[in-house]
Amino acid sequence: MVDGVAREQDSSKKLQVVPLGGLGEIGKNMLALSCGDDMILVDAGLSFPEEEMLGIDIVIPDMSYVFENKDRLRGVVLTHGHEDHIGALPYLLREVCVPVYGTRLTLGFVQGKLAEHGLDLGANAHPIKPRDRVRIGCFEIEFFRVNHSIADAVGLAIRTPVGLVVHTGDFKFDQTPVDGEVFDFQLLARFAQEGVLLLLSDSTNAERSGYTPSERIVGQRLREVFRQANGRVLVATFASNVHRMQQVVDAAAELGKRVAAVGRSVVNTIEIATELGYLHAPAGTMVDVDEANKLPPERVVLITTGSQGEPMSALSRIAMADHRKIEIKPGDTVVVAATPVPGNEKFVARTVDHLFRRGAKVIYGTESGVHVSGHASSEELKLVLNLTRPKFFIPVHGEYRHLIRHAELAKSVGIEPQNVFVAENGMVLEFTAETGTVKERVTSGHVLVDGLGVGDVGTVVLRDRKQLAEDGVLIAVLAIDQQSGELVSGPDVVSRGFVYVRESEQLLEETKQRIREAVQRASDGKPPEWQAIKAEVRDTVARFLYERTRRRPMILPIIMDV
Amino acid sequence: MVDGVAREQDSSKKLQVVPLGGLGEIGKNMLALSCGDDMILVDAGLSFPEEEMLGIDIVIPDMSYVFENKDRLRGVVLTHGHEDHIGALPYLLREVCVPVYGTRLTLGFVQGKLAEHGLDLGANAHPIKPRDRVRIGCFEIEFFRVNHSIADAVGLAIRTPVGLVVHTGDFKFDQTPVDGEVFDFQLLARFAQEGVLLLLSDSTNAERSGYTPSERIVGQRLREVFRQANGRVLVATFASNVHRMQQVVDAAAELGKRVAAVGRSVVNTIEIATELGYLHAPAGTMVDVDEANKLPPERVVLITTGSQGEPMSALSRIAMADHRKIEIKPGDTVVVAATPVPGNEKFVARTVDHLFRRGAKVIYGTESGVHVSGHASSEELKLVLNLTRPKFFIPVHGEYRHLIRHAELAKSVGIEPQNVFVAENGMVLEFTAETGTVKERVTSGHVLVDGLGVGDVGTVVLRDRKQLAEDGVLIAVLAIDQQSGELVSGPDVVSRGFVYVRESEQLLEETKQRIREAVQRASDGKPPEWQAIKAEVRDTVARFLYERTRRRPMILPIIMDV
Repeated sequence: MVDGVAREQDSSKKLQVVPLGGLGEIGKNMLALSCGDDMILVDAGLSFPEEEMLGIDIVIPDMSYVFENKDRLRGVVLTHGHEDHIGALPYLLREVCVPVYGTRLTLGFVQGKLAEHGLDLGANAHPIKPRDRVRIGCFEIEFFRVNHSIADAVGLAIRTPVGLVVHTGDFKFDQTPVDGEVFDFQLLARFAQEGVLLLLSDSTNAERSGYTPSERIVGQRLREVFRQANGRVLVATFASNVHRMQQVVDAAAELGKRVAAVGRSVVNTIEIATELGYLHAPAGTMVDVDEANKLPPERVVLITTGSQGEPMSALSRIAMADHRKIEIKPGDTVVVAATPVPGNEKFVARTVDHLFRRGAKVIYGTESGVHVSGHASSEELKLVLNLTRPKFFIPVHGEYRHLIRHAELAKSVGIEPQNVFVAENGMVLEFTAETGTVKERVTSGHVLVDGLGVGDVGTVVLRDRKQLAEDGVLIAVLAIDQQSGELVSGPDVVSRGFVYVRESEQLLEETKQRIREAVQRASDGKPPEWQAIKAEVRDTVARFLYERTRRRPMILPIIMDV
Repeated sequence: MVDGVAREQDSSKKLQVVPLGGLGEIGKNMLALSCGDDMILVDAGLSFPEEEMLGIDIVIPDMSYVFENKDRLRGVVLTHGHEDHIGALPYLLREVCVPVYGTRLTLGFVQGKLAEHGLDLGANAHPIKPRDRVRIGCFEIEFFRVNHSIADAVGLAIRTPVGLVVHTGDFKFDQTPVDGEVFDFQLLARFAQEGVLLLLSDSTNAERSGYTPSERIVGQRLREVFRQANGRVLVATFASNVHRMQQVVDAAAELGKRVAAVGRSVVNTIEIATELGYLHAPAGTMVDVDEANKLPPERVVLITTGSQGEPMSALSRIAMADHRKIEIKPGDTVVVAATPVPGNEKFVARTVDHLFRRGAKVIYGTESGVHVSGHASSEELKLVLNLTRPKFFIPVHGEYRHLIRHAELAKSVGIEPQNVFVAENGMVLEFTAETGTVKERVTSGHVLVDGLGVGDVGTVVLRDRKQLAEDGVLIAVLAIDQQSGELVSGPDVVSRGFVYVRESEQLLEETKQRIREAVQRASDGKPPEWQAIKAEVRDTVARFLYERTRRRPMILPIIMDV
């Protein structure tokens, strides 16, 4: 046993591991660990809406379980500063006031995020460094350096009363990292000597064979591109990828080029990273966009957002000739230094097409060498399993098929099949030093954020939005005399998103005629019953319009009683 | 000169090439060639809607140019039977009655397609074989065998009064094709001797280096999978890929397994292809699904649709446990023998996830070896350029970046840069034996098909659908006295897709109050002006709701005058 701290393994205690996000889906990572009266959260991330979540801005984990147990919550431990690991913090921290632990850069990104919501960490900010140890309730957390597509990422060794839990966070192995900070293999190997009860490890790239290449090869490729370029070079990358920005800056400086940042999030990252000492630019290298626009093009490198083709990003606007300050000219080279996140492929392709149309040379795609992944491939994953030799294993961070593939890798290196848990969000996994058991589930799921509304858009609203999106809406307005049931005014018909009204007058006139007949049928000889009239109008109109157009707009009969 | 037919090169004549679809986008291929009084079309395809084309079923080319020139239209020549090459035929043929030329399998698919629209080729069907020559107006067309992901595909050598035009159609080189029908390299080389004025060639895979592998490697991989499977095997592939189905059938027959088709389009393809002699199954190999369900699982292979994860396809339904006849059981193997078309990545991923959840072993993705592309990669494209040595070159079939990459390949093998035309739909390219010129554009673009409506959904309707999809609709109904301008009834407020109404009573009550105030402001002391009142209500409500929810539902004020 390497150290004695917090090792009083109390066999009467049980460790509960409750994933609340990030399993079987993309993003919004959150994991609760609890033992007796103490609970900690690892990460609190958001995800972006799925295609069918119409009009939704972001998706956060359902935190009911956390809020129900808030008296036991001792703190939040962050592995790194990506949105899918920190983005739900504002929604957590406005309900509970707890310490937040993370590296300096991670906390830098968190502060920026909270400020947008009018929040501030204040005394709850607990900056940590790799190899630091902190005690949070009955847990002792030791942080270890990992490599990832954001600087200052860490994994966690969590010493619990039941045994040692190792959580990799998002990681890859980079033997030649840009900042010289190599993954802490020593510490990882030491954990194995101590005995690892449970490993949780990043599954994102479990489908990929081999090893993920070093970030440094991107730098080499960028140098080549910069050297060959006769005009300006624009490099689009993830706004949080400080290492990549460092490589852009280094390559530019070497070749006597100047670098300007375009797009709010790139500017923010550069500010935070420079201030905290994570990004180093030789004096005079960084200029602002207006200065850059005055330089000869071959001396200019621009770093922009929009590597995912996001419609409102700087690169998209530039591609659409809709940017205030940057206009593509023939001779410009654009480097799209990213691989599309699933779902964004078309946006990226469209952006590339527009850039080509404006005469740029565009360097993009998997064969171009200007991007490497930030996540470990299967050989690295097997190495982590072999280095730590855990008794129990939970693959985390990935869609369901990634978890399955990662579980297969674990079994292939000799982890007992019954000790590998392909978990789902909301599952409670309970561990003693000897046993791992799946218990009853807790509340979990998505909470949809739309504008200021958190959780107020649910199935009904989304179903309506879907119908409106497909075939639009048709509103039939009638005024009916309360006594006689006679039509006093109308029917008026208003439609949106259904047919082009100016060319469909005939159809809408016929619709009105059908409505009149429906009202007559429903009310003839009887005292008027609004519900019956509405139902008759709705059914009649729906049937008529489907027959004539094969469309199913939402039909809304509105009856005014006068 | 190899032959004398139709070679009277009349230097006073000019050849016009007018791409009407398929350039700078996915799908809906259509190209018009005309010379003097004669025009022919090459292909008439559809595409599937882009994400922002809400509620649209399919997209066809704007055929105004064709209809304006229908007196000159002598026929339609088809390269192969994929939807993006034949899918617009029903919309063309209901307006013009012209001969249609294609191989037997291609015409088989066309007949099926037309039947769905209550149309029939009748005497206009002109089946052709590779190396056949047909004269259409002043054009003489010679067909040559190409390989592609559908059987019986051909390229076209079009002898025109101006010179020889070679059009590859969609193609790849398969040195070991499943049906033994190798690409007709001999003929292609012969065209070069004759002198090729213009080459049009498939750009889909111009981004990929190297060669596209033979379809036969998929067969080898399928054999391995079938041999290792202890339970049923489901193979999902494109419904039109007869070669792949042949390989499934062959591998199954070898191992004593039976094959059943699941899904209407697979059943249709197998029927057409078997009847026309393109698919050969040993007696007793094919069974129907009910029979298959009675066999021991290790003897069953199912071919299904849904390799693109299409929500209503057989495979999706099976994955969601929503199929009438097929239920996934642990021990089943599912082979997804396709690469997602851009935009479908998420659907495919989700289907794979669900299949894993139900306990299937799923074989999918680029590393799995169960799919090869049907399009030539860069080395093949360069070979075609070098074999034909055309004077002029137009890259076709591809998004804009593919055309650019293909143009670069052409220049790299020595085609004069000024003779390479990266064209766009609607561009008129005019050729003489010596010159190629870009002329004025003709009408071109998308026509959106939604239900029975062809072209009636345009920008306005789509913009409304987008707003409805994002934030829903809020309808404010008022009855106002025509004389006094006083509110007689209402305001009533109806919303859909905006907020969950039951939990937003307070918000909607306040909205009504704002509407009352707005009416008062707009009509106070003046005779009521409906437009002014509507505008005031709309602006007031929009502002109020944005402030309270940060959402922008469509606001529809409806005023009844009573």
